[in-house]
Formats: sequence, structure tokens, C-alpha cells
Amino acid sequence: MKKGKVYIVGAGPGDPELATLKAIKVIRQADVILYDRLIPKELLDEAKPSAELIYVGKESGRHTLTQDEINKLLLEKALEGKTVVRLKGGDPYVFGRGEEECMYLIEHGVECEVVPGITSAIAVPMYSGIPVTYRHASSSFAVITGREAKEKKARKVRVKDIARAVDTLVILMGLSNLKNIVDELLEVLPPTKPVAVIHEGTMSDQKVVLGSLADIVEKVEKSGIKPPAVIVVGDVVNLRDRLWKKK
Amino acid sequence: MKKGKVYIVGAGPGDPELATLKAIKVIRQADVILYDRLIPKELLDEAKPSAELIYVGKESGRHTLTQDEINKLLLEKALEGKTVVRLKGGDPYVFGRGEEECMYLIEHGVECEVVPGITSAIAVPMYSGIPVTYRHASSSFAVITGREAKEKKARKVRVKDIARAVDTLVILMGLSNLKNIVDELLEVLPPTKPVAVIHEGTMSDQKVVLGSLADIVEKVEKSGIKPPAVIVVGDVVNLRDRLWKKK
Repeated sequence: MKKGKVYIVGAGPGDPELATLKAIKVIRQADVILYDRLIPKELLDEAKPSAELIYVGKESGRHTLTQDEINKLLLEKALEGKTVVRLKGGDPYVFGRGEEECMYLIEHGVECEVVPGITSAIAVPMYSGIPVTYRHASSSFAVITGREAKEKKARKVRVKDIARAVDTLVILMGLSNLKNIVDELLEVLPPTKPVAVIHEGTMSDQKVVLGSLADIVEKVEKSGIKPPAVIVVGDVVNLRDRLWKKK
Repeated sequence: MKKGKVYIVGAGPGDPELATLKAIKVIRQADVILYDRLIPKELLDEAKPSAELIYVGKESGRHTLTQDEINKLLLEKALEGKTVVRLKGGDPYVFGRGEEECMYLIEHGVECEVVPGITSAIAVPMYSGIPVTYRHASSSFAVITGREAKEKKARKVRVKDIARAVDTLVILMGLSNLKNIVDELLEVLPPTKPVAVIHEGTMSDQKVVLGSLADIVEKVEKSGIKPPAVIVVGDVVNLRDRLWKKK
């Protein structure tokens, strides 16, 4: 039997209109779609009526498939000759493990194509009026995850080095670890350094908490916002006053 | 007269299928479109027949509008009550000056909405088989421009600090400055550090030059590739062997 093909597809940050034309095209072609929790559900409406839709997580506290089980399921469906879409929030190559899935498939002889998505790291700040670069104030930005693989031991040092070196720091998946991250940043940045924490970015119920390294932990606690959230640290946060819905 | 509205829209890295649904929607609504050189021209076919299409550069060696002239033209068209789209390559907030245009319009009382685009910084490496993050080898990436505004003097120090701190460094608009950048990086990174230089990324004539800090300058010279190009520095470049079109 002819082998199928797998598309690893970024669904973007939340607003379904931020999906790419290519994402919609391959979703419409798919015989099977494996999708994560953090994708705009409207995109699944584009699937063929006969398409098999499989929810693979990943919600904390619920039983979901492990990465290994997801890899095996993708392979199994492709070996059945099916066109498979693996639909992920944001971009598959920005802390999305798309590269792991793709390597596994290629190693097992299955063709894999990756389709980029709008990353939350840039679009979520943008939708809150915060550009990650600015000609007069930010000529570099870095993106890190607030939750690292346990294999990597060197985290503490690197976060500080990165924060010291770049103008804008974007932290994904860092909200539940916010206090520790802020404590580290305070060792190398002034307490006045502006910080924004953005929940449900690009969506209609987007919430933004603004503050500084000195008070952001308290403000976030009071706000009651929950993950997922994007954290932005840098002077560009102040540009929001000049870019946000002043009509 | 009712004022028009301006959309600052990212057209993505080159492949027209990487435009977002929202980009297509606002292009179809536009009365006027101001577009840059580095956009997929197919997107202009989506405009209304009556739409005014204005090329605003920026090609080196040709007379084009200055940033100030572009700002004024956007404002003028919006004040005429028109729906205006400002179409840019990549993402408007990643070294795209979208924030400058938007601030100018808001300061002059015109509504401005920014639509993110797929950034070349992530998608161009991806289309060459290079993920900017990888769970086992890269938990951070930084994006910088190889061509900085003259106002900022501190460049030399920061490039080295950033390169030392992050796992993956992506440099946009750096090809014509490649020798200087590599010389700086060699002060803080080993000569064996892998480098990829990617020309016309995501397009059918995409070219990739692979090497290390020790030999990339010579290899790029021999290849004859020209700007625009994306430069990736980091161990993730080696993943290309496992992710690139092995069928």
C-alpha cells in the first residue's frame, strides 16, 4: 500500500483568522487530524465530513497521550495510506515539538512536511499593542520557555544572561513559574523594568496585566489570570500607550 | 468626512500560501494598498479591480519613498476616508517598522490595526529543515538585525552577549555584513559552530549554504547568493540532516 503523508501544521495563536491559507488547504485534504487543546476549534470545521478527528491533549490533570504515543499514532495512520494533519497551537517549531514528530516519521520512512503558524511569541504582544522590536529602542528579542525539559540543567544562568543581552524577552509557558522567573530577572535587571502578562492573547477575552519586575507577581495574583499566558519583559511594553486602541 | 482605517499587514516570508486568512480578507476590502518589494505579488491579485496599488520600495539603488513619506501617504489616504492596507514582507513588528507607521497614524487620529505575518526568522529556517528550538538542544532563540539604526551605538557588545547567551541565533538582513558578524561571533563561539545562510527562503528557488563560523564567509562568496537572506547560527543547523526531504 502507498504510504500517506503527515503535515505538522501551526494553527496560530488563537484567532482563527490568523491561520494560513496553507493550513486551511491541508486541513481540507486530511483523512485524519490529531489536534491539541490550544487550537482554534473553528479550524476543525474545515475538515472533510469523513475525516477522523482525534484529540490528543494536552490538558493538565486529564489523561492524554504521551509524546511517544502521539508519534506512534501519526506513523500508524500514515502507514495506512492516510493524509494526516497534526494541528498544533502557535508554530510547530517554537517549543512545539514539531521537530520531534517530524524526525520520528522521517526515520520510519514517512514523508513529513511542516507548515509554519503565527507564533504567540510575537502576535500576542502585538495584539496588546506591544511590538517586540522598535527601531529606536529594541533591536533584538529572545524567546524562551518558562518550563524546560528536565534534561537541561543550565537554566538559571542562561535566563539571566539572555535577559541582560537582549532588549526584549518573551517567555512562553512561564505563568505558573512567574515568581521564580521574576526573582532571577531582578538579579540582572532594574525593578522598574516593564513587564506585561497576556492571557488568551488575540482572542476576544484577552486580558493584559501591566507592571514592572517589582510588582508584576502581586498584580498577576490579584488578577486571577491562569495559563496559557505570554510574558513580555522590556521597554517596548511602554509603547502600548501609543499603540493600543486610541481611537 | 468619515476617516478611513489603516491595516498594517504582514504578508509572510515569500510563499503566498503562508498569508493568513485575515491578510486576504483585508486586502480584498482595501481601497488603497501600499506594498513593499519583498511581498508575494500573487497577494495583490486579491485586491478589488478598483483598488489603487502603490509600490513604495524599498529596493537598493532605486528611488523609493522614505519612511516619512510613507507615513504621510498612509495618513493622507486614510483622511480621504479610504480603507488602506500597508502590505509588508514577513511580520510588521519584526524589524518591519509597522510600529512606527501605526504610532504616527494614531497620533494623527487615524485608527490603525496590525495583522501579524509569518516571520522569516522562524519559517525560513523551517523550510530548510532547521527548527529554531529543539527540546534536547535549543531552549532559547534570539532574533537580531544585521543592519542597525545608526542611533544605536552599542551593537558590537550586544551581538556577542546574545550569541553567548542563547542556543540559536537568527540574523535578518545580515548578508551584506556577514564577514563582520562572523568575526564578532568567533570571539565568543567556537569556529566549529554550525551556520546556515538561506536565500529566497520558502520559495521554489530557495538556496541554502551550510558551513561553520570558520568557513561560511568563503562558502557564501563562492555560492554567489545575494540578499535577502536569513542567517542561522547554532547546533540546530545540524538537525537539517534528519529533517530535510529524506523520502
